[in-house]
Amino acid sequence: MANKKIGTQSVKLSNPPSFISSATIVGPKEGKGPLKDYFDIILTDDTYGEKSWEKAECKMFQDSINLALKKVNLQINDIDYLLGGDLLNQIITASFAARQFNVPTLGLYGACSTMAEGLSLGAMLIDGEYADNVIITTSSHFSTAERQYRFPLEQGVQRPFTSQWTVTGSGSSILSSKGEGPYITHITIGKVIDLGIKDANNMGAAMAPAAADTIITHFNDTGFTIDDYDLIITGDMARVGRNILLDLLNKEGYNIDSKYKDCGIEIFDETQDVHSGGSGAGCSSVVLNSWLLSKIKNGVYNRVLFIATGALLSPTSSQQGESIPAIAHAVTICKNF
Amino acid sequence: MANKKIGTQSVKLSNPPSFISSATIVGPKEGKGPLKDYFDIILTDDTYGEKSWEKAECKMFQDSINLALKKVNLQINDIDYLLGGDLLNQIITASFAARQFNVPTLGLYGACSTMAEGLSLGAMLIDGEYADNVIITTSSHFSTAERQYRFPLEQGVQRPFTSQWTVTGSGSSILSSKGEGPYITHITIGKVIDLGIKDANNMGAAMAPAAADTIITHFNDTGFTIDDYDLIITGDMARVGRNILLDLLNKEGYNIDSKYKDCGIEIFDETQDVHSGGSGAGCSSVVLNSWLLSKIKNGVYNRVLFIATGALLSPTSSQQGESIPAIAHAVTICKNF
Repeated sequence: MANKKIGTQSVKLSNPPSFISSATIVGPKEGKGPLKDYFDIILTDDTYGEKSWEKAECKMFQDSINLALKKVNLQINDIDYLLGGDLLNQIITASFAARQFNVPTLGLYGACSTMAEGLSLGAMLIDGEYADNVIITTSSHFSTAERQYRFPLEQGVQRPFTSQWTVTGSGSSILSSKGEGPYITHITIGKVIDLGIKDANNMGAAMAPAAADTIITHFNDTGFTIDDYDLIITGDMARVGRNILLDLLNKEGYNIDSKYKDCGIEIFDETQDVHSGGSGAGCSSVVLNSWLLSKIKNGVYNRVLFIATGALLSPTSSQQGESIPAIAHAVTICKNF
Repeated sequence: MANKKIGTQSVKLSNPPSFISSATIVGPKEGKGPLKDYFDIILTDDTYGEKSWEKAECKMFQDSINLALKKVNLQINDIDYLLGGDLLNQIITASFAARQFNVPTLGLYGACSTMAEGLSLGAMLIDGEYADNVIITTSSHFSTAERQYRFPLEQGVQRPFTSQWTVTGSGSSILSSKGEGPYITHITIGKVIDLGIKDANNMGAAMAPAAADTIITHFNDTGFTIDDYDLIITGDMARVGRNILLDLLNKEGYNIDSKYKDCGIEIFDETQDVHSGGSGAGCSSVVLNSWLLSKIKNGVYNRVLFIATGALLSPTSSQQGESIPAIAHAVTICKNF
């Protein structure tokens, strides 16, 4: 029986896995933002010496894996599973990067929620005794995403103020059955929610209801309250989505404002002309695997709810008049438990 | 510690989950093939009354879930997780279908290997006590895949003889902690393997090395031999891939010929002009969830190794001159254990 399930959508881990390593690589613009001192590698050129942006994104993905391994003197053979994904069609970044590594690979697609999906599955694989070490890696690249989802960059299309800026970056987490924290203790897997938003330049609005649903479900399932958390941080709501999310939660009696941050707001400052804020499967990943984990290790935040949200649209679905479904998965990350 | 892991890439489940329901919907062409008597629903029109093939594929995905639930009088609230995926960019079929269901959803991308990836993760979620019931659903549609990966159908491009025909269909499996079988007892998660094949019209050749690697690893990890299996069945090697796979295995000392079938060969007969055979994320799924599970329940096959393979290319990767990475995951399905 499902003894580790609590409530309707959540899991309490019996033997919480520990983050034992993390690594991040970001692009030049992210390297000029407020979190610049926390990233491991800042590219000076977003082609990373490659012939296409897609190949550059793949190289970032590979190098964030290599760097996370190197920091703890592990070889890829020490890793039981790679769980990863990205935003490109057929997740070519993850798949093409994985061919460089001799490791069982599970491809995920949750758009910008993929880091939380991977942490959830990876943590259950360890807690359930199927793995000792797993690596979770996601990425995104402004230039690959822009030309796939929107317009050729050369066209210079003006971006509306609700639009978000896809983060160029890749982050990796290694979770282990051994380790001294931070730990993943609880997981809430989200449902796909679509309230009818059709504007692909306003993904914050599409994702806010999914984030609100997962956060409220998490509190109901686990019995945690806002007071139990030092920080509640979403992946890439950005400024437009942030306000909608806070409104939705307030209406349901949850006032999280004083505890709330968003990775997409933290990664850029307002002078960087990113409009609503950052987004992308790499956004939550590089913020988690740099600034956030270091703040948890330092004791600035002892218990954090990390919620990554994904807008599950494609150019084809938008062209066919569909609205934008979204999903959000949440994990509880603690310094101690 | 990872007590349930055996060898380098495999898992032995402690409490093997049971298939308690399965359902299949296929297109008109599949409904004229050799397995026609085993499918639940055969469409007379591959638009399924929808305005686009993408919407038709989404409707098939939804209806295969609804039908699998209905067969065992379950409601969606009885399901702990939906694990699913498809071939379309950003897996819009799975995501858009999931918004109709109030269920925690984990989006997967493994191309045509997705059914085996979902069965593997779903089985571990149950065995690990995170879920009582999970549903795994995948789909593909000839007309959505053809225009996304290759050419507009209206162009009438001639297909080379090595090419495969994407199956129009969706299959769902419900796995449960209770049930009377068939059971999933072992899992082997594959690595991404790329031996340099660049011909996107010859996916069998690209996938055969991944299938061979996973099959050999499975034998090494589990201690099973060919004699332990009544059937070894791949997802969509088709005729070209079949021969390469058998050659690769023979060179390594594994002669599986007498036990071997391929879902992509079984689903169409040679008069149906599909060239090498069937393919697609729906191919292995509809064959498993109709003919194969019924033959296991009937005792025709008592122990089966089901290996679904995926070619992890995209049109963008091919246009940029990349070769085709592939992956294969395997699960052992038994009438009893």
